[in-house]
Amino acid sequence: MEQAPAEEWLKRRRNFQKMLSENAMEGCLITQNVGIYYFTGSMQTGYLFIPAEGEAAYYVRRSLTRALSESSVRTVDLGSFRQFGSRLAEDYPKLFASGTPRIGADLDVLPAQLYLRLVEMLPDAKWMDASVLLRRLRSVKSPYEISRIEKAAQAAAAAVEHGILQLREGMTELELMATLEQVMRNAGHAGLMRMRGYNQEMPTGMVAAGEAAAEPTYFDGPAGSRGLSAAVPQSSSLRRIKHGEPILIDIGCCIDGYVIDQTRTAVIGRLTPHLQAAYETAEAILRKTEAALAPGVSPENLYEQAIEMAAEAGLADHFMGYGPDQVKFLGHGIGLELDEWPVLAKGFRDPLEPGMTIAVEPKFTFPGLGVVGIENTYLMTENGFRTLTISPEKLYELSV
Amino acid sequence: MEQAPAEEWLKRRRNFQKMLSENAMEGCLITQNVGIYYFTGSMQTGYLFIPAEGEAAYYVRRSLTRALSESSVRTVDLGSFRQFGSRLAEDYPKLFASGTPRIGADLDVLPAQLYLRLVEMLPDAKWMDASVLLRRLRSVKSPYEISRIEKAAQAAAAAVEHGILQLREGMTELELMATLEQVMRNAGHAGLMRMRGYNQEMPTGMVAAGEAAAEPTYFDGPAGSRGLSAAVPQSSSLRRIKHGEPILIDIGCCIDGYVIDQTRTAVIGRLTPHLQAAYETAEAILRKTEAALAPGVSPENLYEQAIEMAAEAGLADHFMGYGPDQVKFLGHGIGLELDEWPVLAKGFRDPLEPGMTIAVEPKFTFPGLGVVGIENTYLMTENGFRTLTISPEKLYELSV
Repeated sequence: MEQAPAEEWLKRRRNFQKMLSENAMEGCLITQNVGIYYFTGSMQTGYLFIPAEGEAAYYVRRSLTRALSESSVRTVDLGSFRQFGSRLAEDYPKLFASGTPRIGADLDVLPAQLYLRLVEMLPDAKWMDASVLLRRLRSVKSPYEISRIEKAAQAAAAAVEHGILQLREGMTELELMATLEQVMRNAGHAGLMRMRGYNQEMPTGMVAAGEAAAEPTYFDGPAGSRGLSAAVPQSSSLRRIKHGEPILIDIGCCIDGYVIDQTRTAVIGRLTPHLQAAYETAEAILRKTEAALAPGVSPENLYEQAIEMAAEAGLADHFMGYGPDQVKFLGHGIGLELDEWPVLAKGFRDPLEPGMTIAVEPKFTFPGLGVVGIENTYLMTENGFRTLTISPEKLYELSV
Repeated sequence: MEQAPAEEWLKRRRNFQKMLSENAMEGCLITQNVGIYYFTGSMQTGYLFIPAEGEAAYYVRRSLTRALSESSVRTVDLGSFRQFGSRLAEDYPKLFASGTPRIGADLDVLPAQLYLRLVEMLPDAKWMDASVLLRRLRSVKSPYEISRIEKAAQAAAAAVEHGILQLREGMTELELMATLEQVMRNAGHAGLMRMRGYNQEMPTGMVAAGEAAAEPTYFDGPAGSRGLSAAVPQSSSLRRIKHGEPILIDIGCCIDGYVIDQTRTAVIGRLTPHLQAAYETAEAILRKTEAALAPGVSPENLYEQAIEMAAEAGLADHFMGYGPDQVKFLGHGIGLELDEWPVLAKGFRDPLEPGMTIAVEPKFTFPGLGVVGIENTYLMTENGFRTLTISPEKLYELSV
């Protein structure tokens, strides 16, 4: 099991402490598994408290044994949860001396029931939402983090290469997906990609073809998809793949916690000229985005530029979903979670920085016909970008 | 795509309305995808409001198109979320006439950030935690729901049958898991099993062998497991399976949203007499639990009976995990989520009822050696129970 260098965990905590100070928070309680892992190197059940100044502490319910062997930070038994409020006050007397400390927490993921218990335990604390700080901090990746995404990219590319060889008319979408999954699992794929958004979930992406790919759904992505039933309303369905229809292979892979996201479009035979042209417009948007992709650029501008190109091609209504089911972004940050920052969308104006990893996914949806598009994950560098996705970029046209 | 009969959704809402009235709540806002599906037949992004009296409404953000085609309830566009508070007050004038209505919500899963926005939107409402009511209601399954779990049980049994044939010394745990997953995916497995518990997640269960299975972890289950890394600290690892060690095959499958859970133990060659005896004790505990399994019985008593049997066998420290990493239950309800009610644990005294579906999983953990055990999912009937798991019950001893 590879881990980040020992000093990296400390650096992450130090950077976050700086953010806490700048935002007038005296400490932050991290409750989410992904957040705890990011700062400690361990993902056991418990709470991580990071004071703006001083040493963090990881209060573990289970497994303490494992947390002690993995964690880079002071790690102790959580003990009675009822006493946790007074325990924190004892462990951080200076911080709680004011009587009304401002304490951050990951309120975007912490369930209300648990939040209300914490409020009750520390009734004088002023609880703040630290989720924006956490998302900003995590948007810039370290060399170790990038190496994990690169490993995931290798597994995803191997899966596509194998899957394309197996693809046959009459296969179900799910059969093709299961074939891809087996390759990625054997390479170490965790079996799911973590998502931060409430009610969002994703095992390995989607393989969807023809009109099934274009059915609208709740999932916060540009392609729809029929899925398996009203209770599993996304990703692959049991529909059989036909000749001449677009097959969207939008997959990811999670290695050592880190996720890649990529899309390729395939067809058995040829696409109709209209869909072929839409695919080419998606590739052209990707090229134009790459041409602008550099530190200092506003994510919002990349989105607006893509919207303009789609409109110029007469495809405005089909871009990133169809009609009322369109999503309002061109891409998203990616790392320990599939839905990280920055989002290439209106309102995201903080300039791109070296170390950010971003999936860019121009797609066009045609109800009754299908979805075409392409997606790469990019690393922002000092001068521009490096493409992390390694699958060949093309429309995969098969003769079988 | 099979769906429950049209009248079933109405019946579920009616039963919940009765609970709301009995618990002095004037309405309940369901925010979680699983909860929305349970009451509407649709799992799109939005909010379901169920008044204690009158008609429910499903306010959909995306996809409204899809929700309209699936939902059994009045389904409308959510519109501006900022206006949602006043919208509810307008749509349910009688309910909000008191000025301070008691409104329930699924606070055990609703993120605090969203909860705080809702509180702000309806500042005079008294928000209540309705999660206990939801968990109670959903613990008793309909014939449709049971039919879905039975379908999942068939897929899981087919996977085990196939996996046992593929099992070879030197395979990694993850390779065997990927083989099982492919069979279940082709049968319609969603690729993950939903869990209600915060920070809990599970693609398809675990395949783990020897000392790797016995490594403690955060996951709220009796077996530990090494997993793939500190960032994926559960389920299967890349360790190769050896001769003579216990191989725990604890898998589930999610069909049309419903989950089965089952465990079988295998070995290439023979187990040591000590582990063999522990396996037999697990089977004996399962038999004794079955002998007591009937409507009216207290879940707590089943747990206590199992604890006693483990102690009598001299295995108290090894039962349901080892030492400080033991979990305090024998089994759990199962349905749309893997971690439903009732839990066979202390404090669960409400008598078992016909229609409940419960996974019972006696297991013994031996650090450095492995985990042995067995798990079936049961349906409570009018007079006793029916076993839903259909894999043969035995220690799978392979000669290869």
